[in-house]
Amino acid sequence: MATSNAIEQLKEALKALPGVGPKNAQRMAFHLMERNREGAQKIADALNNALERIISCQRCNTFCESEICDICASEKRDKQLLCVVETPADLQAIEQVGAYRGLYFVLMGKLSPLEGIGPEQLGFKRLNAIVAENQIREVIIATNITAEGETTADYTQQMLAPYGISITRLARGVPVGGELEYMDQRTLAAAFKDRRATS
Amino acid sequence: MATSNAIEQLKEALKALPGVGPKNAQRMAFHLMERNREGAQKIADALNNALERIISCQRCNTFCESEICDICASEKRDKQLLCVVETPADLQAIEQVGAYRGLYFVLMGKLSPLEGIGPEQLGFKRLNAIVAENQIREVIIATNITAEGETTADYTQQMLAPYGISITRLARGVPVGGELEYMDQRTLAAAFKDRRATS
Ligand SMILES: [Zn+2]
Ligand SMILES: [Zn+2]
Repeated sequence: MATSNAIEQLKEALKALPGVGPKNAQRMAFHLMERNREGAQKIADALNNALERIISCQRCNTFCESEICDICASEKRDKQLLCVVETPADLQAIEQVGAYRGLYFVLMGKLSPLEGIGPEQLGFKRLNAIVAENQIREVIIATNITAEGETTADYTQQMLAPYGISITRLARGVPVGGELEYMDQRTLAAAFKDRRATS
Repeated sequence: MATSNAIEQLKEALKALPGVGPKNAQRMAFHLMERNREGAQKIADALNNALERIISCQRCNTFCESEICDICASEKRDKQLLCVVETPADLQAIEQVGAYRGLYFVLMGKLSPLEGIGPEQLGFKRLNAIVAENQIREVIIATNITAEGETTADYTQQMLAPYGISITRLARGVPVGGELEYMDQRTLAAAFKDRRATS
């Protein structure tokens, strides 16, 4: 083989990017080394910086660079509203709509028996404690409208049922199989507005 | 905005990858930080390693990690055959076919007046010196079959014409508009086999 070990290692490493297979990884590796070494350096630096600085909010679990994220620390958010999402990307998608003014809880995943992800692997214990220890009038479950997301929503709903507070779920304005992160803002806003009470 | 600066910087940096726009960069950034921090570290390390170690072969210009690449240093290659390509990725595509046993010269680009890339910006001076100083019986011009690749081939052919050696170009088995890097091996092998003598 003509190429260097360093190129082979880089191709291998780039396959960790979502949606990037061997052919695409090769194209990226050559492109960066041939034509954009400055860009390659920026990616390496940004990755190291992110790995070093990004931690989880002690309260809601989302990405942040301090103990408590800006949303949890804000005086302007309605602390009696709690929106449960799967990932920080989902939280960001909802924030970009700008219609929700409560707090969040990020599960950091979804229940997935096939992948060995049960309630213990996600943040349900802390979610339970938050609902137990705070005055919350409504929990909005905003997991993805996928099989695993719905299972996660069902579990959340059952876990919180004993508290006798209002529990709602996003209206199925979000197309079945869709993921919040890629939804257009109007669909997401409508789904928020039409959230339905659970039994 | 809810996300951290480190995430924003990472999204920005990832746009240096070919074919990656803002939406895809965001997806990659979240994926790595949520689900694959180990993979993120590997990418950062592989990039830094590649940036530090990959240099150009003093003779043929391709990527290598020593002064002279394995191909140029090999005793088994036919030193009277010289194949001129645009990039290391093209060289690798030809090597993967396994049918060519001569040496290479990598221009590291193509003539592109629109982008201000003239003969001085590419390796033509060194290519000229190599042909002048070595016993070469055939130069195979294997630039891409694109407008800029053909211009580059024409220039190469004219520059080397005075030496009175055989100059060939890849047969147009490679579809017009196609790039070597993405060609299937059989098409590439046929194009090599059918290379045509120039006038
Ligand atoms: Zn928080
Ligand atoms: Zn070489």
